[in-house]
Amino acid sequence: MATTAPTAEDRLARLGICLPDAPTPFGAYVPAVQTGNLLFLSGMLATAGHTATVAGTVGKDLDVTAGREAAYTAALNALALAKKHLGSLNRVGRLVRLGVYLAATPAFAEHPKVADAASELFRDVFGEGAVSTRLVFGVSSLPLGSPVELEVIMEVCP
Amino acid sequence: MATTAPTAEDRLARLGICLPDAPTPFGAYVPAVQTGNLLFLSGMLATAGHTATVAGTVGKDLDVTAGREAAYTAALNALALAKKHLGSLNRVGRLVRLGVYLAATPAFAEHPKVADAASELFRDVFGEGAVSTRLVFGVSSLPLGSPVELEVIMEVCP
Amino acid sequence: MATTAPTAEDRLARLGICLPDAPTPFGAYVPAVQTGNLLFLSGMLATAGHTATVAGTVGKDLDVTAGREAAYTAALNALALAKKHLGSLNRVGRLVRLGVYLAATPAFAEHPKVADAASELFRDVFGEGAVSTRLVFGVSSLPLGSPVELEVIMEVCP
Repeated sequence: MATTAPTAEDRLARLGICLPDAPTPFGAYVPAVQTGNLLFLSGMLATAGHTATVAGTVGKDLDVTAGREAAYTAALNALALAKKHLGSLNRVGRLVRLGVYLAATPAFAEHPKVADAASELFRDVFGEGAVSTRLVFGVSSLPLGSPVELEVIMEVCP
Repeated sequence: MATTAPTAEDRLARLGICLPDAPTPFGAYVPAVQTGNLLFLSGMLATAGHTATVAGTVGKDLDVTAGREAAYTAALNALALAKKHLGSLNRVGRLVRLGVYLAATPAFAEHPKVADAASELFRDVFGEGAVSTRLVFGVSSLPLGSPVELEVIMEVCP
Repeated sequence: MATTAPTAEDRLARLGICLPDAPTPFGAYVPAVQTGNLLFLSGMLATAGHTATVAGTVGKDLDVTAGREAAYTAALNALALAKKHLGSLNRVGRLVRLGVYLAATPAFAEHPKVADAASELFRDVFGEGAVSTRLVFGVSSLPLGSPVELEVIMEVCP
């Protein structure tokens, strides 16, 4: 009997993850644009609706653990948005670019540990073969006081 | 009698907008690169020539209104550059990505209001159907002291 | 007798540049992803192995000259990674986007001079016709305390 690799939706169900409502814009932009087979998402924050679930600066108000929770929340928002746009996460071919931008102090240097909370969720849902490149840096401030913003570019299956 | 949707150049004329000279590089880079049907612009600042039209940090030296003026200036520069590169703004299919990076204090949280000055200009010129995704964050400093830098990726009509 | 334009590998050899080992990830991401004919690299730091070759903030701990050295180191890492991924730098068609993100003070304004150290190396290796667009800004902090991070998107020859 042939075994089949689990799909992204299979993995999501096995992980017991319940996606939030997809974020909606708070300005003159759209949540997602597909050009060719690339899907660009707008910046995903640690938000529920139009409110930050946590606010503050990593390295001052938030430690690595709290930063990881914020990054995980933003990553769930990205999954919810991709699913809303594509109909199913099974249409995601692979992630191309993940940017993790942290409101962080000048002295903070553990950006990769925080960013991994988003990267690991995407790996667990889309699989090892779909893992993205990554850009990570500290910014001075983010919309709504969110400690994290994600940039996502993904490949969509034809 | 059939009505025709106005073109980007029509809308620009109706808005009474007179574009500035397109920015030229001040370093070892080019203003624009097209790859396939995607046009990438170099970072657009609030400049006239190689001088910032306004300098400072949003949330400290500049309020939201002054930040919006800077974002509008940078957006006009992007339009001028796209027109110079493509010959006509009518060749722009849609905006894919708009990044709005503000020199902003750690306490600043109203990035979307400032960014909307650029987004709204692009929407007014290219139409509702051409609106981009958006990334917005505060940075510690920008070239020439400009309070804003825009990242633009647009789709070009074949 | 016909003369042939030098290749990127020719130019690298003529410049006497010996590339370092390509950087490896320190997190749940991959160094490079190709989608269509675009190659995205993960953020390149001023590192040797998993250690920053220099740490600090430009405009405070590092002057323009020291910032340029860090940008050059990060650019060498990008060349090493592209070569590892593609087999040969001759497969690079052109650079599309170079982002140069500097850990910099709010007062710093000479980002282009620092960024040119990376841009000039790429121009010297890939030629004038391959020069990229560029985004440059100051960030609050970078992984491992590196003063610079590079974003690279390049076109790959078919």
